[in-house]
Amino acid sequence: MSPIIESVPNFSEGRRPDVIAAIVEAYGSVEGARVIDHSSDADHNRSVVTLLGSPEAASEALFRGIAQAAELIDLNEHRGEHPRIGATDVVPLVPIRDITMAECVELARALAQRVSAELDIPTYLYYKAATRAEREVLATIRKGEYEGLKQDLLAGDPDRQPDFGPALLGPAGATVIGARPPLIAYNIFLSTEDVSIAKAIAKAVRHSSGGLRHVQALGMLVEGRAQVSMNLLDYTRTPLHRVTELVRLEAARYGVGIASAELIGLTPEQALMDAAQWYLQLDNLTPKSILDWYLQ
Amino acid sequence: MSPIIESVPNFSEGRRPDVIAAIVEAYGSVEGARVIDHSSDADHNRSVVTLLGSPEAASEALFRGIAQAAELIDLNEHRGEHPRIGATDVVPLVPIRDITMAECVELARALAQRVSAELDIPTYLYYKAATRAEREVLATIRKGEYEGLKQDLLAGDPDRQPDFGPALLGPAGATVIGARPPLIAYNIFLSTEDVSIAKAIAKAVRHSSGGLRHVQALGMLVEGRAQVSMNLLDYTRTPLHRVTELVRLEAARYGVGIASAELIGLTPEQALMDAAQWYLQLDNLTPKSILDWYLQ
Repeated sequence: MSPIIESVPNFSEGRRPDVIAAIVEAYGSVEGARVIDHSSDADHNRSVVTLLGSPEAASEALFRGIAQAAELIDLNEHRGEHPRIGATDVVPLVPIRDITMAECVELARALAQRVSAELDIPTYLYYKAATRAEREVLATIRKGEYEGLKQDLLAGDPDRQPDFGPALLGPAGATVIGARPPLIAYNIFLSTEDVSIAKAIAKAVRHSSGGLRHVQALGMLVEGRAQVSMNLLDYTRTPLHRVTELVRLEAARYGVGIASAELIGLTPEQALMDAAQWYLQLDNLTPKSILDWYLQ
Repeated sequence: MSPIIESVPNFSEGRRPDVIAAIVEAYGSVEGARVIDHSSDADHNRSVVTLLGSPEAASEALFRGIAQAAELIDLNEHRGEHPRIGATDVVPLVPIRDITMAECVELARALAQRVSAELDIPTYLYYKAATRAEREVLATIRKGEYEGLKQDLLAGDPDRQPDFGPALLGPAGATVIGARPPLIAYNIFLSTEDVSIAKAIAKAVRHSSGGLRHVQALGMLVEGRAQVSMNLLDYTRTPLHRVTELVRLEAARYGVGIASAELIGLTPEQALMDAAQWYLQLDNLTPKSILDWYLQ
């Protein structure tokens, strides 16, 4: 089988339909890569594209989308709730099939280098592609947003120098490019309206406050129901089923249960197969036990 | 996508390697159909083939396998522990992709008719293809085995007349052909050596003694461990997860748990996805949430 990567570029426009359409069109303009989803948020003034394709085609499509966004978006005019430093803000590359994380890191570096060289945009490498430990975390790079980064670069701050390109920001700002495993966006609805319980559970299960590694979590009220909203950053190491059962255990502590759950965006099938295997205790399950394996 | 069926023909030879090889080769001799597994049991003196293919190719392959078995097996000489009435004993057709059960019933009838017409073998239609209610159950058709059926036909018993072909048995006996949903062979190992607990649980969960519909179950001792050995005859209506949790509940009654479980043969991926969806409470899961859906 041929290698496939996913990328989920975020760009800083969520209001002007013509601009959004032009940028999405650029992402979809390369044979061998496909925009399978895109969504825009007016409050955030931001859009997210989901792209699948061969490494070569997806890299070319990403370059075209970044170039188009740089032409149509001026960060000096941009306001929105979501933090951002660039017209194209962040571009994660995700290994999906027959490609390693190390190869995606190489692709991310090559793309960043090309964006800086041909479009004169400073680029920063993050997460698995990071060149400095503190840049593994996106928030470090995006600190102060476009306006703050612009000033820090003018002041010559050595901690904020880009990996490639000029050490100053034009109207297109800077772009963060990196590689990461597939992310699972997973929301659990509790059988209560009490959002304080969702917040307490989120605090108990998330990595930042002592919980499970590779888990980000927030408690919120959604449609009148308490929700634990999570990102699972590496489902191969901190799987769906363990997170679910820890949430269930913590919820029971408050006398509530899990009412339902939802996956946002795209989830790798393997994450669900892993859950089935764990719950059903199928210790020796292999692809050769699965009928569908023979149909491919 | 083009339609695919599975078939799991059973033939009455599990000892003579040359005979087994010749019959398996006949099943594998048609372009567009593939033998993905076969196994033989010397005590049962019986072999099982698993075949995947287009409806046309699989039907042709089944006909060739049945013809080859009729040439090489004489039921008058055959002894084995497993009940049987024919050289090719039973041939279930299973809808896998882009084909309905009704279409598989039609294929089963056409195959039975051809086998009777061209090979002079009496054929009986069973399960979803049955023409009489009592023939939905294989055991009814196979009652008395080859020897008993031969006598009943000689006596002109109206209940035992075949659906197609002559009302008398030659050395190749009779063949039962039908259509059924995919069957899941599922074994649960308990954390005990006490086989009486496995037997009690099997009795509690199986359909024949008051348990769940579409479940056959036996308690046995396997490798020093109590095992509940089950066939799930329609996982879309009586799913893996419900069976598992009922076994777990009954086991807890005896103070034991589930140590592990195994799937024998081939299981449709959907059965595992259904389990993941149920355990994780993903009420609105659709194929469009699964990344791999876009890769096909």
